Amino acid sequence: DPIAPVDPGEAEDFLRRCYTENPRLGPVEPRLAVVRAQIAATGGYVHTTDELTYGAKMAWRNASRCIGRLYWRSLVVLDRRRARTADEIFSLLVAHLQFAGGGGRGTEPPKALGAIRPVISVFAAAQPGQPYARVWNEQLIRYAGYRQAGGGCVGDPRQVGFTAAMQGLGWRGKGEAFDVLPLAIETPAEGVRLYELPDRAVLEVPLSHPEYGWFAELGLRWHAVPAIANMRLTVGGVQYPLAPFNGWYMSTEVGARNLADADRYDLLPVVADRLGLDVSRESTLWRDRALVELNRAVLFSFERAGVKMSDHHTESARFVAHLRNEEKAGRPVPADWTWIVPPMSGALTPVFHRYYAEMDLRPAFYLDDDAASLARGCPHAG
Amino acid sequence: DPIAPVDPGEAEDFLRRCYTENPRLGPVEPRLAVVRAQIAATGGYVHTTDELTYGAKMAWRNASRCIGRLYWRSLVVLDRRRARTADEIFSLLVAHLQFAGGGGRGTEPPKALGAIRPVISVFAAAQPGQPYARVWNEQLIRYAGYRQAGGGCVGDPRQVGFTAAMQGLGWRGKGEAFDVLPLAIETPAEGVRLYELPDRAVLEVPLSHPEYGWFAELGLRWHAVPAIANMRLTVGGVQYPLAPFNGWYMSTEVGARNLADADRYDLLPVVADRLGLDVSRESTLWRDRALVELNRAVLFSFERAGVKMSDHHTESARFVAHLRNEEKAGRPVPADWTWIVPPMSGALTPVFHRYYAEMDLRPAFYLDDDAASLARGCPHAG
Ligand code: HEM
Ligand code: HEM
Repeated sequence: DPIAPVDPGEAEDFLRRCYTENPRLGPVEPRLAVVRAQIAATGGYVHTTDELTYGAKMAWRNASRCIGRLYWRSLVVLDRRRARTADEIFSLLVAHLQFAGGGGRGTEPPKALGAIRPVISVFAAAQPGQPYARVWNEQLIRYAGYRQAGGGCVGDPRQVGFTAAMQGLGWRGKGEAFDVLPLAIETPAEGVRLYELPDRAVLEVPLSHPEYGWFAELGLRWHAVPAIANMRLTVGGVQYPLAPFNGWYMSTEVGARNLADADRYDLLPVVADRLGLDVSRESTLWRDRALVELNRAVLFSFERAGVKMSDHHTESARFVAHLRNEEKAGRPVPADWTWIVPPMSGALTPVFHRYYAEMDLRPAFYLDDDAASLARGCPHAG
Repeated sequence: DPIAPVDPGEAEDFLRRCYTENPRLGPVEPRLAVVRAQIAATGGYVHTTDELTYGAKMAWRNASRCIGRLYWRSLVVLDRRRARTADEIFSLLVAHLQFAGGGGRGTEPPKALGAIRPVISVFAAAQPGQPYARVWNEQLIRYAGYRQAGGGCVGDPRQVGFTAAMQGLGWRGKGEAFDVLPLAIETPAEGVRLYELPDRAVLEVPLSHPEYGWFAELGLRWHAVPAIANMRLTVGGVQYPLAPFNGWYMSTEVGARNLADADRYDLLPVVADRLGLDVSRESTLWRDRALVELNRAVLFSFERAGVKMSDHHTESARFVAHLRNEEKAGRPVPADWTWIVPPMSGALTPVFHRYYAEMDLRPAFYLDDDAASLARGCPHAG
């Protein structure tokens, strides 16, 4: 619950672990005394930037569904707790995307376009019992989905509800397959306001195939930065309802889910048709063949565009390295098999051939029910 | 524990459910009175053939790792409880394979070769505290694995321990890649005895590819009937340590695991090499491409040979139908996501996109530790 008061036990657990893992922060006892007093007096406490930074890294480390955790220490944490207005938040989200995706001016010298960095922007903590700023979007960059009169859909079917909600707020999309949705930023003072992302914040990759020329004619594309916008970050009992984060894409997220799922872009029949496959029976494995070619196209196109993306074999090997590292450090690695194992060629990856401990460790990211509703375009549910 | 005394509560639970689901068996109360008296007097009780038959079907229905459960009612249950000697057991196992695989003389008119039927042969129940007959093999048909001096392996690496144990008992294999292992049948009176399966019991399919002529040159083959031999069937508190069962193969078991796993036949590098794929980087998805072609070959070859096998798309759709059926019948379907979702193209199948209840319902099949040890060639472990 984002607006519950801070639990002093959780604050203490976090601070002890944070200071133990970071001896340079000094002894924890004096800090605990201050925090206890703050909580007693105000119901909450304020993280130092060091605490916030390490807490966000720990939340990533604890994300049991994430295969990409090997580089958890490298997370760039942007402390945006002072931002209040929707305009401020918007410009900091643009800065986040530019910084994460390269090319723009961030807080460090710009890197090459496409050299994706894992970044989180942490906005103001929720105050117990108070309304808070949030973003309705599920990710900072997503494509609109338009339900057609005939029953079909243009764009991403997953975004149909959200797109309709944006249209209800006055947004007009081009009605094409890859229209970037506006950001819906809600603040207690201003209500919800919509913002168009500028081109410089949205790096995209047009898709082509290393062998099949016709693939480019399909007019497919995908964005470079997957940035989840609606999960709550909880650190030491403090709730950060707006803390968008991004890594780089693992290719299967795009090629085996977003573009392939029957309730998303559903492209396998299209690709199979162009490949001339026999789709009269499942046993020709036409779906599997089309899937591999779609994923080859995704990887090839990102590579050619110089945009960082990893394949599921490489990312699985990294996760196994992460398991080893953490074991050496004496830490458990909570992991959810059903999310860690990639959605294609599961048994080809080393992560398939073992089990994992499932644990709800904090700091953590949670998707609240009302955040999920908002992202489906149902502002008043949940 | 196979030799524990019968739990009267479990007997009653089973009988009530069995008689409720089968009104034609009449009222359960008189039967319960008899069974209670039998257990009180002897520590056990004897199933009627109807009870045994329905109990085995329920055990299949409860097998949470099995995607093939739609046809659970069609299981053919062969009541072999009178067999005592290894010779008797062996000839009934041969009959099982012939009956399951078609072509041979079973208890019904022979069907066409390759028309695989789900069959279970139930041998004598364990008597509390007594040794019992068993088969050491993990499946009735498996291929030997020979560790080579240089460190490599000919045949199935998974069977290296078991193969060595068979050699220790005097068996000599041809030393080739697909040598069918002997059956190791152990009875209390005779100890362990080895039996060669006759050709008529082992239907095999040589593998070729619908497009690539070179595929047949690889000299690959696989057997038609997957028959698990070392799981204990438990029905109403009675333990059946020897109750081998079979279905037909789902293609991925052969093409995405047995022939593909790095610690099994490890054929993806071989297939990729013949396909001329670029194996210098993971991101060419050469593993995924080789995997699909290997699986196409498996399906194509079984189809051409007229041997029943299902692909993972079809079997997933059937499982979804099973979920619907069982829901209508008001029964829960225990299912283990990590086993139900096929090992390739997971997200292409409808079984991927949902969760399942995990429950340990009885009747059931269990793999005991000592049975697992025996199958690894470690007779005295566990
Ligand atoms: C660096 C590259 C990264 C890769 C390759 C990666 C990969 C993935 C993948 C494949 C998933 C599953 C997504 C799905 O199936 O919908 C996932 C989930 C997740 N990741 Fe990562 N990730 C990365 C970075 C991060 C970062 C920087 C964070 C947070 C700081 C993070 C936190 C999470 C969380 C919380 C989930 C679960 C999302 C949910 O429940 O919907 N990941 N990640
Ligand atoms: C009729 C066709 C059948 C199909 C297509 C089928 C399919 C499968 C598959 C794909 C698995 C996973 C195997 C693995 O990954 O190692 C499995 C496991 C299992 N099946 Fe079936 N099955 C069939 C029939 C049966 C029958 C007749 C029984 C018992 C009467 C049965 C009981 C089980 C059990 C107990 C497991 C778990 C085995 C273990 O724990 O290793 N299945 N099945």
